[in-house]
Amino acid sequence: MMAQAAIALGVPIRLLAEGPDVSAAQVVRDPLVGDYRDLATLRTVAEGCSVVTFDHEHVPTEHLHTLTEEGHACRPGPDALVHAQDKSVMRARLDALGVPSPRHRVVADTAEAVAFAASVGGFPVVLKTTRGGYDGKGVWVVSSEDDCADAFAVAESTGVQILAEEKVDFRRELSALVARSPSGQVAAYPVVESVQRDGVCWEVTAPAPDLDETLAVEAQRIAMRVAGELDVTGILAVEMFETTDGRVLVNELAMRPHNTGHWSMDGAVTGQFENHLRAVLDLPLGSPAPRAPWTVMVNILGGDHGAVSENLYGGYPHAFARDPGLKVHLYGKDVKPGRKVGHVTAYGDDLDDVRERARHAAAWFRGDLGMESA
Amino acid sequence: MMAQAAIALGVPIRLLAEGPDVSAAQVVRDPLVGDYRDLATLRTVAEGCSVVTFDHEHVPTEHLHTLTEEGHACRPGPDALVHAQDKSVMRARLDALGVPSPRHRVVADTAEAVAFAASVGGFPVVLKTTRGGYDGKGVWVVSSEDDCADAFAVAESTGVQILAEEKVDFRRELSALVARSPSGQVAAYPVVESVQRDGVCWEVTAPAPDLDETLAVEAQRIAMRVAGELDVTGILAVEMFETTDGRVLVNELAMRPHNTGHWSMDGAVTGQFENHLRAVLDLPLGSPAPRAPWTVMVNILGGDHGAVSENLYGGYPHAFARDPGLKVHLYGKDVKPGRKVGHVTAYGDDLDDVRERARHAAAWFRGDLGMESA
Repeated sequence: MMAQAAIALGVPIRLLAEGPDVSAAQVVRDPLVGDYRDLATLRTVAEGCSVVTFDHEHVPTEHLHTLTEEGHACRPGPDALVHAQDKSVMRARLDALGVPSPRHRVVADTAEAVAFAASVGGFPVVLKTTRGGYDGKGVWVVSSEDDCADAFAVAESTGVQILAEEKVDFRRELSALVARSPSGQVAAYPVVESVQRDGVCWEVTAPAPDLDETLAVEAQRIAMRVAGELDVTGILAVEMFETTDGRVLVNELAMRPHNTGHWSMDGAVTGQFENHLRAVLDLPLGSPAPRAPWTVMVNILGGDHGAVSENLYGGYPHAFARDPGLKVHLYGKDVKPGRKVGHVTAYGDDLDDVRERARHAAAWFRGDLGMESA
Repeated sequence: MMAQAAIALGVPIRLLAEGPDVSAAQVVRDPLVGDYRDLATLRTVAEGCSVVTFDHEHVPTEHLHTLTEEGHACRPGPDALVHAQDKSVMRARLDALGVPSPRHRVVADTAEAVAFAASVGGFPVVLKTTRGGYDGKGVWVVSSEDDCADAFAVAESTGVQILAEEKVDFRRELSALVARSPSGQVAAYPVVESVQRDGVCWEVTAPAPDLDETLAVEAQRIAMRVAGELDVTGILAVEMFETTDGRVLVNELAMRPHNTGHWSMDGAVTGQFENHLRAVLDLPLGSPAPRAPWTVMVNILGGDHGAVSENLYGGYPHAFARDPGLKVHLYGKDVKPGRKVGHVTAYGDDLDDVRERARHAAAWFRGDLGMESA
């Protein structure tokens, strides 16, 4: 999707891919294949490039510091990126900035986890690895002292810490996404509603329906403030909880185009990937305004039944015939159960209709509708 | 731009490029470089592909017949494509179909050209090579017998014929673009107004302002009919004249995504490149509906003065800062005077404003505004 945006802007992309056939490697000229944890590889990729940016936040911070010292422009920079890589660093910084967050504490063992639970009114609480978690991995909802062992076992074996957080009684999850350039310009996208299943993003509605305007503005201002204070360049996605008592709390940060921003590729004047590129190149940002009253994106997660779920292209005839306005994005990935292999987007004036269209199409591609592909 | 559309659909593209650094070769994986007039090269490209399609109409028809006989799906097929390659073949077919056209005659020499001129009320008339012309090349407006020599000299040296056409007194030029699939489904885009300079497309407005609805419908029906009768698959662009007495006459055919359709990439629910791919893959077509009341595209033609005209990227800061809604497409081509190196698109509710935004941006990138880039 970054390549797609780069083509229009006429910006050449040099890609470091983990394998020759990963999604991005299929759609760029001459991808480099190598290990993003290897400094020499990073130097080769960065040689001669105007900007180094990221599709994920796992590039070791120390290497990014080295590249920066050697004169490369890493955007976002390592001092920002660490807040997306390490949850304890993020929590400490957000606290210092007075950004509303769930109560939390780094806990060294089960006893400390139990003490934390007591301090927030009891179990259940959430345990998270400070580093390495994504799409629900490295997260445990623990209901008792006995539940805590798994988390600490993983922490010990992988050398990370455990962060305990109160389990927030939320009405729903929101995401406030902004683009920020080194010159300090910020573009704030409409705050969206994000529905998760099993820790994985499932469906996003833009804008979040029935979101109190004061709360929407607060969410955007939090995202803008965090981006500025942390000097994030490119896209910053701030995932939040909207609590049952009408507050927003920051859940997680991502410093790259995010699943909760895919709707913008078809639904906004400037999609998140285009604005990410503009931002890291320090170009003036594009309008983040929506182009339709409602835009709904539903992920295509690999299903495990039916012909459609194995051969995604076979899903096109039905999906496109049913809905000539549907936008489909397939990532060129092999289908495995639960894997994000694409997404569908619908937009229009009627939220119920837009939701139905997007949900039907995603279910169809997953193979959940009981109809075999032609 | 085809690659950009293919990425979203997850359709792998194999490209035959004329050189390793041409626009398309910069944005696809592993482009093949070779001569599209060489049958062995075409076989190599086509091997294992579902569909063979084109970015231009110059692939020799006989080779396409051979590929088709050998089992490849060429879309559009050679029997359709010849009508875009040879103007005399086109004229004969349109006459047989009763499609309104300027009066015309294939003329073997100056004497026949003079006789033709007399038959349409005198000079000036237009002489065109039957094959090989584009962007104003191979077209002569002749005002007297003496003017005719150049055309016949070119015809003799290149082995083509000369088609004489009456010079139409037109109010403006229009383009009716459709997508058609092998299954026969057609999607008709809004009829656009196309402004040419020196035989090259300069500016396109969608929809054509103040176009009588009956005439608009007739233009679309002509395009749909021609597509069906000629069995065109993919995009068919029918360039037309709107005469001063309120008729439409077909000027030229193109069987590939066309300059007069670029507006649709940002201005329609489904861009022409996406619909071209869907069509040739025999997938249901996407909605061609416009997403804004007015969309204006202006070509960026290489200028010959000023820093901006040499380094297009240097044009971004001003263009994007002035207009956050502007969409820019740069083709990765070296700037040469008069060369199409990109285009800009603006859309919105107010035609004057949309035109001004697009025209200003294109002039800026051309280097015509007297301001140096930063």
